[in-house]
Amino acid sequence: MSMPPPARVGDPFAEIDTPALVIDLDAMERNIARLAAFATTTGVKLRPHAKTHKSADIGRLQVAAGAVGLCCQKVSEAEAMVAGGIADVLVSNEVFGARKLDRLAALSRRARVAVCADNVEAIEAIAAAAARSGVPITTLVEIDVGANRCGVAPGEPAVALARLIASRPSLSFGGLQAYQGRAQHLRTLGERRAAIDHAIEATRRTVELLKAAGLPPAIVGGAGTGTYDLEGSSGVYTELQAGSYVFMDADYARNKRADGRPYDAFEHALYVIASVMSLPVPERAVIDAGLKTCSTDAGMPEPRGIDGAAYIRPSDEHGIIDLSKSNRRLALGERVALIPSHCDPTVNLHDWYVGVRGYGTASAHVERVWPVAARGAIF
Amino acid sequence: MSMPPPARVGDPFAEIDTPALVIDLDAMERNIARLAAFATTTGVKLRPHAKTHKSADIGRLQVAAGAVGLCCQKVSEAEAMVAGGIADVLVSNEVFGARKLDRLAALSRRARVAVCADNVEAIEAIAAAAARSGVPITTLVEIDVGANRCGVAPGEPAVALARLIASRPSLSFGGLQAYQGRAQHLRTLGERRAAIDHAIEATRRTVELLKAAGLPPAIVGGAGTGTYDLEGSSGVYTELQAGSYVFMDADYARNKRADGRPYDAFEHALYVIASVMSLPVPERAVIDAGLKTCSTDAGMPEPRGIDGAAYIRPSDEHGIIDLSKSNRRLALGERVALIPSHCDPTVNLHDWYVGVRGYGTASAHVERVWPVAARGAIF
Repeated sequence: MSMPPPARVGDPFAEIDTPALVIDLDAMERNIARLAAFATTTGVKLRPHAKTHKSADIGRLQVAAGAVGLCCQKVSEAEAMVAGGIADVLVSNEVFGARKLDRLAALSRRARVAVCADNVEAIEAIAAAAARSGVPITTLVEIDVGANRCGVAPGEPAVALARLIASRPSLSFGGLQAYQGRAQHLRTLGERRAAIDHAIEATRRTVELLKAAGLPPAIVGGAGTGTYDLEGSSGVYTELQAGSYVFMDADYARNKRADGRPYDAFEHALYVIASVMSLPVPERAVIDAGLKTCSTDAGMPEPRGIDGAAYIRPSDEHGIIDLSKSNRRLALGERVALIPSHCDPTVNLHDWYVGVRGYGTASAHVERVWPVAARGAIF
Repeated sequence: MSMPPPARVGDPFAEIDTPALVIDLDAMERNIARLAAFATTTGVKLRPHAKTHKSADIGRLQVAAGAVGLCCQKVSEAEAMVAGGIADVLVSNEVFGARKLDRLAALSRRARVAVCADNVEAIEAIAAAAARSGVPITTLVEIDVGANRCGVAPGEPAVALARLIASRPSLSFGGLQAYQGRAQHLRTLGERRAAIDHAIEATRRTVELLKAAGLPPAIVGGAGTGTYDLEGSSGVYTELQAGSYVFMDADYARNKRADGRPYDAFEHALYVIASVMSLPVPERAVIDAGLKTCSTDAGMPEPRGIDGAAYIRPSDEHGIIDLSKSNRRLALGERVALIPSHCDPTVNLHDWYVGVRGYGTASAHVERVWPVAARGAIF
């Protein structure tokens, strides 16, 4: 049920079959190094989120650059990362149901694994699975620091759950999960800072209560690509969980810096390469990349390097490059590079990464072909 | 890189792991029978579109009910259908590039295969691939009947391309592709009828010119789930290409019938079954189905059977069932059935179908577990 890869190692760039998910390896490596340097300088740990890349190959590069491990969102995603050699995985999410929890317990025999909980019943279910397996499961309490999604209220309610975890012989209290996901895409720095200041204060207060209760949290995790420097320099968070930084979504570039210019902490390093398959009129180039190739939940992907062009009206297998406001014209078969608006769900549509060295140069060629190992890992 | 299936044949409904893509087999069979009966009554052929289900297992049920074959949108999709026993496939789309065309030519040795073209250069490329393989390729001319996507203009421009196809020894002229995709989701019957009347007239005029040129089209194909009865009773179209009818998108139910009630030509037969994984407050149930489980390009999926509930704010792996306007409350671990807003890209996110007999009854159980064989078939 997997497609064969669209390229082989050594192929020149022009030989890649389309549509293909192409990594600019040089840009990705610079992104990995940049966040690693920030973490080193700031004295905070880095645990990048694998839900962006879904690839143990890329995860190992992050670990080699100093990351303590990876975050995952599902047990099956964690299984894929451990199978690919990642030794330390935090499932930064709630997991419920005996079948999934038994798999999590089994995984705890093979790697350092932790999971989050925000509810008494959920903690009892994790404790029961850990007791069945005979291996303790490290459990973090997720607090809602403004995302209004999962998480118990900060402060005493969180401390009560931490006490419950600590009281169960089959569990080990691992700390706090405190991710403010809604802050990541707030457009101005002022908005992002206000949201994260609130999250930091709620987290700081909870950490103090936990310490007073004799339950100092080993991990205080959170932060994303849009705000990592704020949590990272807070003195409260101990682990940064940014994921998208490795590729940098087009939607993140719609954020603004303090000076109002586009947010550019990282470089775009991921492209969907598509080809013109129909050219009914010169200003409408139909490409072979539609909803099954590019996600559109965060807006349209953006054509790179064609002034005035826009990607419009995607259908299952078609996208249109609208050139009505551009001076450029495209030929049948010509290639177009799209910057994904949201990399996580776009990556999830593909079976393979094609890693290109020297992207954008005459010597651009395929250096890596990696499976998207945790594609479809929804369980 | 595929996930193990979330259920086994014989499992009771409650044992299916979540999130899962579940077919109500009884409803799907009624949908298949209903369109087959319309085709028989009207004297038009049926060639359902496989881009909805991506499954030769379901395609074979459609053929068993009288369909002449299937449509596909990509060569790789056609390969998956032929591998699964479908003997007659029309790639109802343009294909460009020697690598893909050589695969299409190879497929022509194993099944009855046809493809579309809207451009001189594209026709010459297909002719060259067919000449290389030594097997003629049946080629249809796609005309733009109002979708404003691919397709040459109806009338003389289409006839000129048909002449070119007929003049090439390695090609066989197969007819016209005349799909008005934009008409399918126009909300009122009046709007849909106006759009399809225009498409029918453009197609009729082109057919007459082709006949006068000594090139009568064997296939005049088009139509979708929203308008099939209009093209089907036109006397112009010979093959209907509806795909979504097999499952019936939530978005199609937002269309209106002549009397203003929701469009109900077919029944919803596909669900994403998800579980509540976090319940921070009673009116916000967080489920384990987000952007990697449900597509949102045609709006949000709709929770079934919970008055006043809405699916909101999907993120990669989370969805929220907002119960603030509902009297129902959900428990941790409780299951929710979502009707996909757009089945085609939703199906593409999953590795497996779980076919349930007696859906919604106490005896509901798993009767089929089918791979989504052409998931990710983007090449």
